[in-house]
Amino acid sequence: MSPATVLPKIAIVMGSQSDWATMKGAAEVLETLGVAADVRIVSAHRTPERLYHFATTAAEHGFKVIIAGAGGAAHLPGMVAALTHLPVLGVPVQSKALSGQDSLLSIVQMPAGIPVGTLAIGEAGAVNAGLLAAAILATTDEGLSERLQAYRAAQTANVAERPS
Amino acid sequence: MSPATVLPKIAIVMGSQSDWATMKGAAEVLETLGVAADVRIVSAHRTPERLYHFATTAAEHGFKVIIAGAGGAAHLPGMVAALTHLPVLGVPVQSKALSGQDSLLSIVQMPAGIPVGTLAIGEAGAVNAGLLAAAILATTDEGLSERLQAYRAAQTANVAERPS
Amino acid sequence: MSPATVLPKIAIVMGSQSDWATMKGAAEVLETLGVAADVRIVSAHRTPERLYHFATTAAEHGFKVIIAGAGGAAHLPGMVAALTHLPVLGVPVQSKALSGQDSLLSIVQMPAGIPVGTLAIGEAGAVNAGLLAAAILATTDEGLSERLQAYRAAQTANVAERPS
Amino acid sequence: MSPATVLPKIAIVMGSQSDWATMKGAAEVLETLGVAADVRIVSAHRTPERLYHFATTAAEHGFKVIIAGAGGAAHLPGMVAALTHLPVLGVPVQSKALSGQDSLLSIVQMPAGIPVGTLAIGEAGAVNAGLLAAAILATTDEGLSERLQAYRAAQTANVAERPS
Amino acid sequence: MSPATVLPKIAIVMGSQSDWATMKGAAEVLETLGVAADVRIVSAHRTPERLYHFATTAAEHGFKVIIAGAGGAAHLPGMVAALTHLPVLGVPVQSKALSGQDSLLSIVQMPAGIPVGTLAIGEAGAVNAGLLAAAILATTDEGLSERLQAYRAAQTANVAERPS
Amino acid sequence: MSPATVLPKIAIVMGSQSDWATMKGAAEVLETLGVAADVRIVSAHRTPERLYHFATTAAEHGFKVIIAGAGGAAHLPGMVAALTHLPVLGVPVQSKALSGQDSLLSIVQMPAGIPVGTLAIGEAGAVNAGLLAAAILATTDEGLSERLQAYRAAQTANVAERPS
Amino acid sequence: MSPATVLPKIAIVMGSQSDWATMKGAAEVLETLGVAADVRIVSAHRTPERLYHFATTAAEHGFKVIIAGAGGAAHLPGMVAALTHLPVLGVPVQSKALSGQDSLLSIVQMPAGIPVGTLAIGEAGAVNAGLLAAAILATTDEGLSERLQAYRAAQTANVAERPS
Amino acid sequence: MSPATVLPKIAIVMGSQSDWATMKGAAEVLETLGVAADVRIVSAHRTPERLYHFATTAAEHGFKVIIAGAGGAAHLPGMVAALTHLPVLGVPVQSKALSGQDSLLSIVQMPAGIPVGTLAIGEAGAVNAGLLAAAILATTDEGLSERLQAYRAAQTANVAERPS
Repeated sequence: MSPATVLPKIAIVMGSQSDWATMKGAAEVLETLGVAADVRIVSAHRTPERLYHFATTAAEHGFKVIIAGAGGAAHLPGMVAALTHLPVLGVPVQSKALSGQDSLLSIVQMPAGIPVGTLAIGEAGAVNAGLLAAAILATTDEGLSERLQAYRAAQTANVAERPS
Repeated sequence: MSPATVLPKIAIVMGSQSDWATMKGAAEVLETLGVAADVRIVSAHRTPERLYHFATTAAEHGFKVIIAGAGGAAHLPGMVAALTHLPVLGVPVQSKALSGQDSLLSIVQMPAGIPVGTLAIGEAGAVNAGLLAAAILATTDEGLSERLQAYRAAQTANVAERPS
Repeated sequence: MSPATVLPKIAIVMGSQSDWATMKGAAEVLETLGVAADVRIVSAHRTPERLYHFATTAAEHGFKVIIAGAGGAAHLPGMVAALTHLPVLGVPVQSKALSGQDSLLSIVQMPAGIPVGTLAIGEAGAVNAGLLAAAILATTDEGLSERLQAYRAAQTANVAERPS
Repeated sequence: MSPATVLPKIAIVMGSQSDWATMKGAAEVLETLGVAADVRIVSAHRTPERLYHFATTAAEHGFKVIIAGAGGAAHLPGMVAALTHLPVLGVPVQSKALSGQDSLLSIVQMPAGIPVGTLAIGEAGAVNAGLLAAAILATTDEGLSERLQAYRAAQTANVAERPS
Repeated sequence: MSPATVLPKIAIVMGSQSDWATMKGAAEVLETLGVAADVRIVSAHRTPERLYHFATTAAEHGFKVIIAGAGGAAHLPGMVAALTHLPVLGVPVQSKALSGQDSLLSIVQMPAGIPVGTLAIGEAGAVNAGLLAAAILATTDEGLSERLQAYRAAQTANVAERPS
Repeated sequence: MSPATVLPKIAIVMGSQSDWATMKGAAEVLETLGVAADVRIVSAHRTPERLYHFATTAAEHGFKVIIAGAGGAAHLPGMVAALTHLPVLGVPVQSKALSGQDSLLSIVQMPAGIPVGTLAIGEAGAVNAGLLAAAILATTDEGLSERLQAYRAAQTANVAERPS
Repeated sequence: MSPATVLPKIAIVMGSQSDWATMKGAAEVLETLGVAADVRIVSAHRTPERLYHFATTAAEHGFKVIIAGAGGAAHLPGMVAALTHLPVLGVPVQSKALSGQDSLLSIVQMPAGIPVGTLAIGEAGAVNAGLLAAAILATTDEGLSERLQAYRAAQTANVAERPS
Repeated sequence: MSPATVLPKIAIVMGSQSDWATMKGAAEVLETLGVAADVRIVSAHRTPERLYHFATTAAEHGFKVIIAGAGGAAHLPGMVAALTHLPVLGVPVQSKALSGQDSLLSIVQMPAGIPVGTLAIGEAGAVNAGLLAAAILATTDEGLSERLQAYRAAQTANVAERPS
């Protein structure tokens, strides 16, 4: 079976084209770890029907984890979480006026009942959303667990002893 | 025609029962001004289907303005606005840990394309949402405009000259 | 009847020339929707008499909605709202030191009795003020309602499926 | 000439009755220093006409300094300053949801051209507005200057050497 | 096989006894969903050796997801994440002076490489950490997935139509 | 008597050379109004003895108002105020990391007993400190009062009717 | 030699009597560790002369470390640091309106050249100031170092395994 | 004895190479004062074992004071403090999205029992960490005390009388 036939287990959605500069960090780290991801734009505000369709069918499409990034009044992660029982990870994109403080609070302060696992504002958060999604899959995928541990070990090894 | 047959032009929705302590201020001021309002709980996160149904049919049900109150990661006003072309007013309910700063930013920082006219955090915001909804209807309703002006005049008259 | 004879139903006021870079977003979206708007500078602090005159005569001049943008200790929207019973929408202009956090709080935190429907900080807020003003007029203007819905539909259609 | 005939040189205005709990600190310290003050409620939002009348006639009524206290979107101090050339001192009243952070920014972040000398949030700010107003009068009033220095000296003397 | 022999797949750790009032929400929701959890106090600051031992052996003890709650300079979730490749969820406990703003930023703002999926400040966050941990396990546990979906459905059903 | 012999009634002090870019706004507006000002660097932290000497002798040197600008942990205005009974105006200089939020709180949040009349963060605040100092002197200087009113009138006249 | 003749190496100063409720935590932990401390009220704003005298003579009085606690525009720690070359530790006392955010920024944001080692807001910060002062003395005091290590070990031992 | 044989009493650690631009300020000022320092990268998150080893052996390696700088969820200073009884000074490195507000709170808000003496955000904080570390050593090193006092005196002398 060719790799192309592997159905991706991770969906990466974002509110707009401009979020891609941030969110590609998630896609890249997943690719590094050999995890297929499906990437698309789903705007909670401009395409609410697409959001509804995407989120309510995500489980049946075989996704196991959803990564959602958005900025400002960032409703995408929370609304996806409201419409699926899959684990949802949220990435607050750095906004212009408030530097992502609005994005962060809009994503993380979910009410009891509908969780969004929120990562850091901006690119670090996107990379970490990819890593956390991989870690979730790795809880039942030995091969991925080993690749993830190798990634982590390399990361540790790459820290120089002294600054230069 | 009895007043009971008047279809309400204002819908007041809120994310949970606990928001009612805040949002009743909107209902009360509208009642004072003789404006019928329909009040219901619509949780963006716990009842997203209800949200979709409510918002996409609001116009055909004859509503002219929607008031939406929510706290924390307050997605209700913005998602209603995403699903209707009616004017939507948002009330940030005062949250426990962050005193409504999260509610405010989640409601007001909407992206270009989908507006939510946001009022103050808490009870003052709810009263003002009612007043602003009435002012919107009053732009084409002379009787309501007069009642609103009388309300405002009485409000002015009630300010004492000196503190006691 | 030529378009030039249409009295504008929307007034856009701003505290200073420098706010125009932000506020033109409101003017442009209204023009796109075929809604006439009157644009002027009214400084609450440097021209309080002009503010007083503008706001107290706005209704008799035929305005139906007022959009007011200001930055810093942004008193213009609230003071206009205090002097008219028309609906007032406020746009917090992004300020230099505090990135519009001061503008936002000065506009949105109005006391019970005098509402200002507040939009997002900066350009997105200005565009949305235009859209919300149009939505208000559209509650009793079928043609505008259709143009607004078409605008919204085009906006939805313009969201690409995948980032590039 | 009896003290009752002394025209007060200080006006203390506040946005609502509820601000008096805070603002009486200004009145009391002025009374302690033997400075007559006129105290009244002037709501920028609910009584804008009163505000215009008060501020534009304050100089001709013999006031030398105006103390203005308000909370939330606190426009009173800045609007008084816009309508008079007298020195205006602003006191941010502690607000419910945001603890006076909104009041502070609304008062202090005035644009170049219209100053408001702003004091601390709450009661300390009110007392200090009284003291600063007295210090301003004292620049040309030897007797008051001496009373003010005595007040300051007593304040210093009242600081215990060690906590108990 | 008796339930007592089921090794828990979820570890709940917290920085101090006082965090338990918050974190028990995670334990309770997991119990409701029939997910065994191991609960213990691990203080990053007062018991760093215990932290090292716990986190470095968590995977071999069979844990699949770790929930860590802490307040103030909340280092526990991030340090656990640094010492294991398992998915780590963080709960910012509401702190005294800063209401959990310090806890939130200390937990969520992790650098690229070491993710912590962060939930809301306080009790809602603890409940949601439990739900998210269950959702992670449910990606490969059909029975749990059904119980989780039933929980979610009941939650939706429990939202009243109108406030009372 | 030549202008050179006029003793300045206003002292402008600032914490460091780098504050001058901000504080010169105060000096310039005072010069425009024909008010002599003495400008010097007094660092609360690096030259505390100079601060002590300056502030305790300011009154006897004939100063009537002191303008003090500083950034970060901005102690200069408050410490000057602690060491003199003259009115002190504080200008929060915009700081690098926190954009002057630290400067503002360090200056404005003085305890009851020692007031600092605080202006806006940055250049607007410096200009306004000059204007407020002039307004204070103008309470007993008719000529200055007229010049100040003319300045204000010109400022009003310079606001264009419409943006361009 | 009786303990009474031991000159204290630690000075604890605070801005007012009301700070003692917070600062006694520093005194108590030092007493527990057998370190003599001198406790006094030194208000930067109300007793600036006392501040100058205290800080400029602290070294010659044999103090090795100074702990200074204050709230609001908390100038005491920074001004003490400006007037001595001894290490100064600052404790931000929790303030009423801003919960110590003002205190924290006023203390920690010192300019290059004059350091204040700042601890957490409130009681935890006071206790930690005592512990850090002890740790500083312990760098050259073996006995104290052992007592400090014992204190730390007991603290570790007192953390229960599981919450109750 | 050559300088090379002097064992450094100060360790400067930082979370990543990128922190060196900030932290070199600490190294430079210590060099100026003739204090040997050991500089290394220790990432709490990417090299937790290195952190553990460094901190638990710091005392036996002869270090007397540890300076730790980190940004974002800055756990390095607090974790070092948890693993040693030596005095630890923390420098919040200015982060991208939140300008170091996250770094500051993550470092300073330590719980009672484990102190970190925190300096200002960014370069000023790094310089001051060096100065405070020197001041700590100087409490029992007369020569260093004299060099530190000379440094301070030169700093005072370098403040110009007037801005230019």
